[in-house]
Amino acid sequence: MSGDQQASAGRRLSRRHLLLGGASAGIGAVGALGIDLATKAGPTAVAEPLNGTQTVPFYGVHQAGIDTVPQSNASLIALDLVPGTDAAALRRLLKILTSDAARLSQGEAALADSEPELAVAPARLTVTFGFGPGLVALAGGAAPSWLRPLPAFGIDRLDPAWADGDLLLQIAADDALTVAHATRMLLKDSRSFSTVRWVQTGFRRAPGSVKPGTTMRNLFGQVDGTVNFVPGTPDFERLVWGHAGNPAWLHGGTGFVLRRVAMQLDKWDKLDRAGREASVGRTLSNGAPLTGVNETDEPDFDAKTAIGFPVIPEFSHLRRARSENPDERILRRGYNYDDLPTAGSVSNSGLLFVTFQADVDAQFVPIQRRLDALDLLNEWTTPIGSAVFAIPPGCAAGGYIGDTLF
Amino acid sequence: MSGDQQASAGRRLSRRHLLLGGASAGIGAVGALGIDLATKAGPTAVAEPLNGTQTVPFYGVHQAGIDTVPQSNASLIALDLVPGTDAAALRRLLKILTSDAARLSQGEAALADSEPELAVAPARLTVTFGFGPGLVALAGGAAPSWLRPLPAFGIDRLDPAWADGDLLLQIAADDALTVAHATRMLLKDSRSFSTVRWVQTGFRRAPGSVKPGTTMRNLFGQVDGTVNFVPGTPDFERLVWGHAGNPAWLHGGTGFVLRRVAMQLDKWDKLDRAGREASVGRTLSNGAPLTGVNETDEPDFDAKTAIGFPVIPEFSHLRRARSENPDERILRRGYNYDDLPTAGSVSNSGLLFVTFQADVDAQFVPIQRRLDALDLLNEWTTPIGSAVFAIPPGCAAGGYIGDTLF
Ligand code: HEM
Ligand code: HEM
Repeated sequence: MSGDQQASAGRRLSRRHLLLGGASAGIGAVGALGIDLATKAGPTAVAEPLNGTQTVPFYGVHQAGIDTVPQSNASLIALDLVPGTDAAALRRLLKILTSDAARLSQGEAALADSEPELAVAPARLTVTFGFGPGLVALAGGAAPSWLRPLPAFGIDRLDPAWADGDLLLQIAADDALTVAHATRMLLKDSRSFSTVRWVQTGFRRAPGSVKPGTTMRNLFGQVDGTVNFVPGTPDFERLVWGHAGNPAWLHGGTGFVLRRVAMQLDKWDKLDRAGREASVGRTLSNGAPLTGVNETDEPDFDAKTAIGFPVIPEFSHLRRARSENPDERILRRGYNYDDLPTAGSVSNSGLLFVTFQADVDAQFVPIQRRLDALDLLNEWTTPIGSAVFAIPPGCAAGGYIGDTLF
Repeated sequence: MSGDQQASAGRRLSRRHLLLGGASAGIGAVGALGIDLATKAGPTAVAEPLNGTQTVPFYGVHQAGIDTVPQSNASLIALDLVPGTDAAALRRLLKILTSDAARLSQGEAALADSEPELAVAPARLTVTFGFGPGLVALAGGAAPSWLRPLPAFGIDRLDPAWADGDLLLQIAADDALTVAHATRMLLKDSRSFSTVRWVQTGFRRAPGSVKPGTTMRNLFGQVDGTVNFVPGTPDFERLVWGHAGNPAWLHGGTGFVLRRVAMQLDKWDKLDRAGREASVGRTLSNGAPLTGVNETDEPDFDAKTAIGFPVIPEFSHLRRARSENPDERILRRGYNYDDLPTAGSVSNSGLLFVTFQADVDAQFVPIQRRLDALDLLNEWTTPIGSAVFAIPPGCAAGGYIGDTLF
């Protein structure tokens, strides 16, 4: 979806909100903790709620962090359950983490919070939980057929350090300190049950940095995220929350894929602007298809150049990523990463390519297969990590994430 | 200084600005690149400049990034000049990097910018350059007496991976994508002259997340930065920009120290609240001294408890860090870090303790010596990196950072 669509969708009341009456974005909890509302400096100053006071409801039919307008900072974490964990211990773990996530997301300290002052700025914090095949088996649940590592692709250069896991935590907020504190609380509380398998951190533009609703840019400079689902639409309901083939405990949930894709910035920077735009089929200036003017214009795949070549090349990412089958679509909700450069290099960057879809095999895999077979962008990108998780539904107050599984 | 003082100082016109007439924070350059001003959503909506459009003047008597209200994101980078670099090459490097920094800080693409669209949101970007002893020697300049590694301290557990270097870049902005892009441009342009020695990234709260002017909190949850210099005051002029014993090329510049201090969060979290407050001599709730009510209250070191002990303990960080000699003071401008946990742990966190002072030996070293001898906080903190750089003055348009050295 376009950024503007996404922003307006974010302003609408979500289905989760209507069904379960969660607290709307507000300042209640934070106000109670003694944070003042700021008056913005400047000639047109008006009292306005601070970014840090904004909250996303935790309880609901669906988990938060999926139809939530993406926050600026995210930490994606996979945990491995310690050998010998039984279903009862797993349930205890999920109850504790649910309590932490529910409280922190509303600007309240966690129950055993040793730094409660760091909890006062929730900044739209969401914590989204995902279950790997090992966890589902331990709980005695039926796994959806697609809950397993993706098939191997020719372009893959996977490092096991960035693959798989038992329990996923996607922790995201508009403030790095909020993410750091929530991460610390959740990992402390999971410590006697699990070990950290991997942590991957990413970012988008800061809140208020550019016009709200602007589609993100990745580190190639591309507008990235234009064609996407809009929360609340029938497409979103069917292809993200839909559950035709999924086991009953997963109804209201969805499937999650993370591909860690390294981007070879040095090689990319040698390519000229026309080459870059051809590789995707969209302009760099505003992300419009090469046949259009505005970002959200429909691409015209039949348009030809004066000498008869397609304006949007056959090998372009846009052409290859788009399927003729409207069921083969995914919700993309990725983050840039820019880690410490390794010896001899100046950048270690890429995309935490995060997607949500009800059926990973039916929706994600065909796209990745097509891109594996042909996609000019492969010249500059390499998948180095891969993980699949089942995202259980949300829970009601008093319940816990995963309670449908036991 | 208190956060409020710092914020109001930030709003005053800086001396640099008055002297050299740099562009004031504005939207000119960005507007020219086609970015709209946003209208904030909400019942009290008014048109307001976006955070991302704000700029800090680059040219001036002093470099930016020192008296600038700290931005939310920072990357501290040390480069080593490649063997065989001569003074002419070094000058070329400094000219290129000055041009990049000057342009990017005003929301303009760098000259050889391959991702110009990522330059449009300067978000108060500053790039501050520092020179190590090797660079000064290569340029044939006289080094200030303090430009060398700090003396060894008993508490140090230094990892050479986080020490020293020839050229420092402190890149800071209110937006992680802006920092990532500026970092990439500067490192690309320095690639044929130097190699990356280390990169250390840190964060504070996001812009607008808490009330502007709020003192930062570190990952122990402490209010950190209360007692500090206020830009424009005589103390700041004398103890940061003062230059009694410094060589002439450094006038208008200052000295820089980075201590990478690991914080043992696990151990800290075992300590009760009273113990934590005693270790610093300030409350956790609002950072007031244990003898006061408000953050900026003067501590009363003579106050005694009912049974005759000092209310602010002798071993507290506050007591030990404060000297009776008013010349032994420093400007602190640090950042939290929260890196990927190492095997078996759940956190790898600490402080990028950054200070500016005209004379490192006279101002910084005595404080660090006192803290080395006794400071209860040492129980939970360990210096693992250390670097000292000379920060040259700013330059006028047409000049370059370091031009006084050649
Ligand atoms: C570093 C790796 C990647 C980069 C830089 C990248 C970049 C882009 C860009 C710039 C667009 C066009 C604008 C938009 O609609 O967002 C796009 C579209 C898209 N990409 Fe990617 N992409 C990457 C990896 C992937 C992967 C791994 C997949 C799926 C397996 C994927 C699936 C899609 C889809 C489905 C679209 C929308 C196509 C349509 O218009 O229908 N991309 N991507
Ligand atoms: C992880 C390490 C450290 C932590 C967590 C820490 C924390 C704090 C805190 C909470 C305060 C009180 C509030 C304030 O005025 O900011 C403070 C003050 C101060 N700290 Fe530290 N600090 C650390 C390391 C250092 C180091 C290495 C130095 C210098 C070598 C230092 C020098 C000072 C000074 C000069 C003050 C102000 C004292 C005064 O009131 O006059 N600190 N620090």
